[in-house]
Amino acid sequence: LAICWDKKTLTIKFDESFPEAGALIGFGQRAIRTESESRTEDSLQTAMANEQARFHIFLGSKVLVRKDDAPTTTFLCNEAQAFDVQFEEAVLLGADDTGPRLAVPSSFDVESLVPPYTTYDMRALLYSSAISDIEASTVAQAASLLHWQRMNRYCGLCGQKTTSRIGGYRRECKNCNTSQFPRTDPVVIMLAIRGDYCLLGRSAHFPPGWFSTLAGFVEPGETIEAAVRRETYEESGIELRRVRYHTSQPWPFPHSLMIGAFGEAISEEIRFDANELEDCRWFSRDDVRKMIDDNHEAGFKCPPTKAIAHSLIRKWVQASDD
Amino acid sequence: LAICWDKKTLTIKFDESFPEAGALIGFGQRAIRTESESRTEDSLQTAMANEQARFHIFLGSKVLVRKDDAPTTTFLCNEAQAFDVQFEEAVLLGADDTGPRLAVPSSFDVESLVPPYTTYDMRALLYSSAISDIEASTVAQAASLLHWQRMNRYCGLCGQKTTSRIGGYRRECKNCNTSQFPRTDPVVIMLAIRGDYCLLGRSAHFPPGWFSTLAGFVEPGETIEAAVRRETYEESGIELRRVRYHTSQPWPFPHSLMIGAFGEAISEEIRFDANELEDCRWFSRDDVRKMIDDNHEAGFKCPPTKAIAHSLIRKWVQASDD
Repeated sequence: LAICWDKKTLTIKFDESFPEAGALIGFGQRAIRTESESRTEDSLQTAMANEQARFHIFLGSKVLVRKDDAPTTTFLCNEAQAFDVQFEEAVLLGADDTGPRLAVPSSFDVESLVPPYTTYDMRALLYSSAISDIEASTVAQAASLLHWQRMNRYCGLCGQKTTSRIGGYRRECKNCNTSQFPRTDPVVIMLAIRGDYCLLGRSAHFPPGWFSTLAGFVEPGETIEAAVRRETYEESGIELRRVRYHTSQPWPFPHSLMIGAFGEAISEEIRFDANELEDCRWFSRDDVRKMIDDNHEAGFKCPPTKAIAHSLIRKWVQASDD
Repeated sequence: LAICWDKKTLTIKFDESFPEAGALIGFGQRAIRTESESRTEDSLQTAMANEQARFHIFLGSKVLVRKDDAPTTTFLCNEAQAFDVQFEEAVLLGADDTGPRLAVPSSFDVESLVPPYTTYDMRALLYSSAISDIEASTVAQAASLLHWQRMNRYCGLCGQKTTSRIGGYRRECKNCNTSQFPRTDPVVIMLAIRGDYCLLGRSAHFPPGWFSTLAGFVEPGETIEAAVRRETYEESGIELRRVRYHTSQPWPFPHSLMIGAFGEAISEEIRFDANELEDCRWFSRDDVRKMIDDNHEAGFKCPPTKAIAHSLIRKWVQASDD
């Protein structure tokens, strides 16, 4: 097969800009100091005793929002107490200049919430702009950590109960003397390029008209680049040669790290995996330009700006405009 | 602070080569087809029934090696049976042209092994070249997966026993109807650069004279770039601005994914974390060139070629030679 990593493709300029692309898309803002090296057994207690401590409150996987003139997901202890908050399961996220920031689960019945209080799931939080991108990034950190806490109440090695340590960034089993640390799942998400065409697919659960980049979990023993090639081949039948990293995004569903890359396609015939996708096609640069501007005549669309898929697609389209 | 991402630094050319750097360092070879999308409940049984199936055998975290004229870590069923192999805990890694490849734990007493049989831990396997890099990459996949299996015998949510499914790439809890998938921990490893100097540190457990790049786990809610900046700052006190991805490496201790990057240092004064490091210094390009050639007059050394740290350091040194 001919190699077709053409001149236009090569004009994708890897960010000399600062901050990088990943810091500008959803959940990618650095909002608080996490001070990971200085977490101790006392950190959590000290933070809880601080009157300025603010809590993110989770009802299951949804976050509590006070939706008034200045919507927020942070609550001082007084306000938090009205929501059956399980303070004994609090985790310490870090601090900003206003004080410590924590996350707590709540057993409050979501049906009993009255305005201005409501809940948002992480996807709604990302796309609604109900709160700032900076605050949403801290909420994502909180959601990932609380999910991991919930899923590791028992020791996987011996089955006994574990306890949360150093503010929630470790769970310890006193029975078999092992520790677990928060889990983050690396996922590759990639735009395969062949000349003036890129490869997009759609899952059955996508909104009408949506097409997006392919994606999949990195498996044990794989490099990022090998995962990009394997997932692309398995889902679409397209073979990739060179792979170039673009940027990354935290993705709290429940605790992934999206690793965005471009891939040099060296085959054209699509044989897509019907278990994963309901459609998969090559789109021209002109088509994609219309899709990101949401004026494609066939109603085709791309994911919105806060998704890393959008960042990959836009970067490729813009490469020809530079 | 002045920005010092100077012209020389900018001449680091991001790989147009194929295969990329990560495919040439340790554990980074793609050795077998993992066929991850087509794993079913029957895959494992079918593979086990295949007379050509070959097994990697683990005594704890060490792999069995038959160290004769053609050393190997793969054993047909007949030979494997001599080593108290727990076939019921086998996992299916994939296949190559010779047949299926599996991994199994063994309860054989390591003290009872006689030549030509011996065991290697993953680090010895990497640096000894006892077996090919391709085979070592499959062993790394096997070691990571078996460790994850061992650590997830019980459900973290409810504490009941879990069972291995789809050849070992899922563990299921029938009590609470949840599934767990293999874990891979993203770790950032980075070379901070300021003009003609780079930042290297040494841990107390390093061999004498060794200095290496800093590294640390990506935390929930972080981008790769944010983790690079945070870890560098926490360990050395050095602030980074721009971050550029280099390459990646599977790292089976027990199941990490090393994500290598360069960072643009915008401060100079080192205040290293004495809990993590026993030394941390700026090294000139000339010093580092001698260190990678192992002829530095002070006996300073870098990690060997199969480590991603070496790849980062060599890439930077060579950038000035291009």
